[in-house]
Amino acid sequence: MTKQTNDLLTRGPSDHSVRDQVVEAATAHFGHFGYEKTTVSDLAKAIGFSKAYIYKFFDSKQAIGEVICANRLSQIAEIVNNALADVPTASEKLRRLLRTLTEAGTDLFFHDRMLYDIAAVASRDNWPSAVAHQARLRQLIQEIILEGRQAGEFERKTPLDEAAEAIYLVMRPYICPLQLQYNLDSAPAAAVLLSSLILRSLSP
Amino acid sequence: MTKQTNDLLTRGPSDHSVRDQVVEAATAHFGHFGYEKTTVSDLAKAIGFSKAYIYKFFDSKQAIGEVICANRLSQIAEIVNNALADVPTASEKLRRLLRTLTEAGTDLFFHDRMLYDIAAVASRDNWPSAVAHQARLRQLIQEIILEGRQAGEFERKTPLDEAAEAIYLVMRPYICPLQLQYNLDSAPAAAVLLSSLILRSLSP
Repeated sequence: MTKQTNDLLTRGPSDHSVRDQVVEAATAHFGHFGYEKTTVSDLAKAIGFSKAYIYKFFDSKQAIGEVICANRLSQIAEIVNNALADVPTASEKLRRLLRTLTEAGTDLFFHDRMLYDIAAVASRDNWPSAVAHQARLRQLIQEIILEGRQAGEFERKTPLDEAAEAIYLVMRPYICPLQLQYNLDSAPAAAVLLSSLILRSLSP
Repeated sequence: MTKQTNDLLTRGPSDHSVRDQVVEAATAHFGHFGYEKTTVSDLAKAIGFSKAYIYKFFDSKQAIGEVICANRLSQIAEIVNNALADVPTASEKLRRLLRTLTEAGTDLFFHDRMLYDIAAVASRDNWPSAVAHQARLRQLIQEIILEGRQAGEFERKTPLDEAAEAIYLVMRPYICPLQLQYNLDSAPAAAVLLSSLILRSLSP
């Protein structure tokens, strides 16, 4: 064990817990003052750490925002998984998927507006967390289509990746926080109409 | 003829030509400095009219913006009509409609960014010109579906208004300037994929 590691282990809190502390404080701070308007200096002052100390754990403000965004997107992924568990048909899974994502996004907008704004920045600037979330959803759509094809619910002529990408594009305005904010009023009705259209497009 | 009308006819330029002059100058001025940042005072100074004189012809800055926006939306409607004229099938008309609207919007964004921004404000704030444009497009989609149903190209089970509204919703992110700006890169490929999905959803 090097002296440095030893020091960290015995003297201060573990790296892991410092990272958690910074993320937790930053979530509260961004949640109150907004992500784009807050600097690392503001954050350091609010937490009571030096700016240099925070930079030991995170390369940039974005790196902190990334962790917050990834946490929230994991939560949304879990909500989606729970909503789809035990749903017997692929058709109903697609309906639930769009409805659940629309509701989760709307909920975030109205109840955690500042975190919504971080998600919007993440989407606009293609942060890895946002890109990974989109890739997960595309993958999920493919799996559901495949399931429906195997069960005879869906047509099999259209190339799988084409069908999946087109469905993802139909859903995107209600998933992507940049666009959802312009669709909030119409989102519940749109989710119903668009799911039906998607299912008509998949009928054998 | 009242004295007032007489005075206007004989002394100054006609109301019609003053309105046109204001709109023309405003189009150039907003195009350069942006709609939201320009006041009626700025505009008056730039044109060389008094603010009071402009207010004789337009109730507000928005009223001027409305005329500019309506002019541009008429142009887009004409481009769409030309693109759809002589197209033999309803299927191809739907494809052309989405492609043409996407191209016209993208063109406006890259070549007339300030006017694009007026269109975005019009859409965000539901200006009558924007609402009328959307209604025209919904109507056009219904007519094309009806044509395709009558020709046996499209299924007839789904209520016409439901089918039309769902297709409008699929197209909206590529029509609405607020949303198109986030979809510019993917728009040409998306227009192809989404048209195919729409046509699969309409197949008998």
